[in-house]
Amino acid sequence: MAAERVNSGEDGGADLYLELAPTGPRRAALAAALREAVRSGRLTAGTRLPPYRALAIDLGVARNTAADAYAELVAEGWLTARQGSGTRVAERVAAVRPPSATKPASGRAGVAHNLRQGQPDGASFPRTAWVAAMRHGIGAAPSEAFGPGDPQGRVELRRALAGYLARVRGVRTAPEHIVICSGFAHGLRLIFGGGVLAGPLAVEAYGLAFHREILTAAGVRTVALGLDERGTRTDLLVAHPATTSRHGARSVLLTPAHQFPVGGPLHSARRGTAVDWARTRGGVVLEDDYDGEFRYDREPVGAVQGLDPEHVVYMGSVSKSLSPAIRLGWMVLPPRMVDDVLAAKGLREAWAGVGDQLALADFIESGQYDTHVRRMRRRYRSRRAQLVAALAERAPHVTVTGIAAGLHAVLRLPPGTEAQTVARATRRGIALDGLASFRHPESPQPHEDGLVVGYATPPEHRYKAALDALCAVLPPRK
Amino acid sequence: MAAERVNSGEDGGADLYLELAPTGPRRAALAAALREAVRSGRLTAGTRLPPYRALAIDLGVARNTAADAYAELVAEGWLTARQGSGTRVAERVAAVRPPSATKPASGRAGVAHNLRQGQPDGASFPRTAWVAAMRHGIGAAPSEAFGPGDPQGRVELRRALAGYLARVRGVRTAPEHIVICSGFAHGLRLIFGGGVLAGPLAVEAYGLAFHREILTAAGVRTVALGLDERGTRTDLLVAHPATTSRHGARSVLLTPAHQFPVGGPLHSARRGTAVDWARTRGGVVLEDDYDGEFRYDREPVGAVQGLDPEHVVYMGSVSKSLSPAIRLGWMVLPPRMVDDVLAAKGLREAWAGVGDQLALADFIESGQYDTHVRRMRRRYRSRRAQLVAALAERAPHVTVTGIAAGLHAVLRLPPGTEAQTVARATRRGIALDGLASFRHPESPQPHEDGLVVGYATPPEHRYKAALDALCAVLPPRK
Repeated sequence: MAAERVNSGEDGGADLYLELAPTGPRRAALAAALREAVRSGRLTAGTRLPPYRALAIDLGVARNTAADAYAELVAEGWLTARQGSGTRVAERVAAVRPPSATKPASGRAGVAHNLRQGQPDGASFPRTAWVAAMRHGIGAAPSEAFGPGDPQGRVELRRALAGYLARVRGVRTAPEHIVICSGFAHGLRLIFGGGVLAGPLAVEAYGLAFHREILTAAGVRTVALGLDERGTRTDLLVAHPATTSRHGARSVLLTPAHQFPVGGPLHSARRGTAVDWARTRGGVVLEDDYDGEFRYDREPVGAVQGLDPEHVVYMGSVSKSLSPAIRLGWMVLPPRMVDDVLAAKGLREAWAGVGDQLALADFIESGQYDTHVRRMRRRYRSRRAQLVAALAERAPHVTVTGIAAGLHAVLRLPPGTEAQTVARATRRGIALDGLASFRHPESPQPHEDGLVVGYATPPEHRYKAALDALCAVLPPRK
Repeated sequence: MAAERVNSGEDGGADLYLELAPTGPRRAALAAALREAVRSGRLTAGTRLPPYRALAIDLGVARNTAADAYAELVAEGWLTARQGSGTRVAERVAAVRPPSATKPASGRAGVAHNLRQGQPDGASFPRTAWVAAMRHGIGAAPSEAFGPGDPQGRVELRRALAGYLARVRGVRTAPEHIVICSGFAHGLRLIFGGGVLAGPLAVEAYGLAFHREILTAAGVRTVALGLDERGTRTDLLVAHPATTSRHGARSVLLTPAHQFPVGGPLHSARRGTAVDWARTRGGVVLEDDYDGEFRYDREPVGAVQGLDPEHVVYMGSVSKSLSPAIRLGWMVLPPRMVDDVLAAKGLREAWAGVGDQLALADFIESGQYDTHVRRMRRRYRSRRAQLVAALAERAPHVTVTGIAAGLHAVLRLPPGTEAQTVARATRRGIALDGLASFRHPESPQPHEDGLVVGYATPPEHRYKAALDALCAVLPPRK
């Protein structure tokens, strides 16, 4: 077989790769090659072919040979020729092609109401403002921004984050101590999978199973710290043999602003204890500030990092504040850890897209990020109020906790009713999780039944219906 | 310490986190808190503070108390108050802050001429067209696009790629057999690190050390196949005991369109051999089509995948065709491998940004991608011609090979002169690599001295100077 690549490239039109039989009449060979390309599904319905003149030039055949071959396939119904839109593969040919994959994003199939925690409503994404920030950010960037990327992340974004996190979260850092990643999970992989920190790692008795899986995959054993009314028992880091002599955790992963998913901030005394422990034992506190921007009261919620930037790794992302579709997160690191994290990341940026980095930098600097967070805070506060009101009216025996902040609440259930309630909800097309699915397998304390209800995901017009459906599956008063 | 978060949020202005001493006059406490926040560098130069009215409301202090505190810090020079721009942290305060990180992307420091292979000139990135594609793509996407992402990638992009790769590269696939990733390296990590395929893996005697490192890290032993005038010795997969009985490679990684970095296409007989081997031994051919779009002649270069979609994994990315700053790659998989790759990737998209995916889909569908590739092909062809002409004039004893395609050429050097030539180039600020740095440590054949010269990276106005500098460091005729 001889083959030709049609670089109509040089004079307009689309590229086309064709294999022509080396012998025999050119028109027949060309027609056969085109027919085969369409029949095999290689050229799909609607695909635009190069002008026959360009095709002729590139194949080195006479113009009318190419024109005749096109005409032949048009006559046979393989191609269509329309004024203006040129020659294309006929639509009806699509019938022979396998259907395109159109399965919805995982976990959404067959769900009438999505009350899973932690997913902002996709409809709330600020498309116009984001694209404007992308235009500004890309427009203002130097050419080197579009070459191989600095694995630390664009300095424009690190500068914007240093200022924003200081102003809003009380974080104390500088751009050179921030490393950009593609989300919290990526950060965990870099720090533990990359050998920056080693286990055992103390974690909260309740947390995201996905994070525990990442740690396990990285060979890190986790030790669970119980919770009480003051939040996670960081006092056990020092006092409890389970995490010093026997397990000997060298770092602790906390969600101090709003314990995930139980809720409630870490008491100031417990914050101090964690930081003191890290300072005196040479440990590290990993602060997962997953929804720190969404607080609905006056309680102090400055980042623990602000207490001791030398011993706290502060991590955040845009997954809840903006969208999980934008794959950007950040690690605010103690200066001594920066090089190790960069070494774990590699010589060049392989993960975080530069366009998104430049867009987010502009989005923050222009104040659009504040504006979006405020808008969402208003919306979530009102959704939270609707949830509380609905429960007070229809299920007063169910208490709601953890609602001072965040995108979800915890509904406390009568002992032994959690599993059946989750099952009932699932049967009725309500997606939500029981507290049990967040419990550390070696949690030191007895489980309390509860539902983790995310109120951010349903579209505005479906939220009331979602609450009605939720109330209908709650267990009756005992 | 008591603390307040200023949610001037609800009525305009920026958020501000402040810690006030619980006792003593409010004005003094507020002034002290602001002063400390600025002195510590937490509030950086130029940061806009909320209007004093909003601050007063949120702190629960009298308006004039907040106004007086602001006035006090303005008087002290910590803050500036300007009509229109409100109250901001004074610029001169920046002096006390550490400088921002501004180190260039790795490998660029102190380089006058960058002739490293494989990096498109950042200045060639089509900013305007890309942002337009982003606007269209994001504008046309359904809301669910901004929720948790399908790990397979956006269907809009998989559809566009299926059509494009079929039309331009002869790939035969359907959207449901494509998985999006953040680049070729990510694809390798998923396939071997994720346990989709196991070693040993046959590779080409010359290739990217970075890729070998990824495979080694994944515990995959690589077996080197030699090269000759027909390209990589895929015939050895069957004949040579080194890759059957003794090593038993179960898959082979090839760059058939343009061997990297030596150059030259894989001979059709060798293509057939590789595919036959995979079919008869239940093996897999991994096709790295890193620069398949950039060919400057009529030689057939259809993807090997088109020969047998059931046994070839076709991989590509935008790193060379568009920019390494856009972190998008694709794996065209044999149907039976799709689920395993998705399992390795996880429940949700954690890597490839949805914005970039939607933008690239639109960029391809609109024909902009073809337009950009053609523009770059013209530019590279002319740079290639300038390189060949410069060498013919100033170093006729140096032969150039591998220039039928791609973004780089190989300059053959007299035996034993490679290392010193690279060292001389480095001393003169020319960044390039010798062929030796791409050689597999267990390559079965003797090394031939050569330089790998990338001609895509220098800006247009610097290219001639780069060629002059290059010719000046080449070894003299023996």
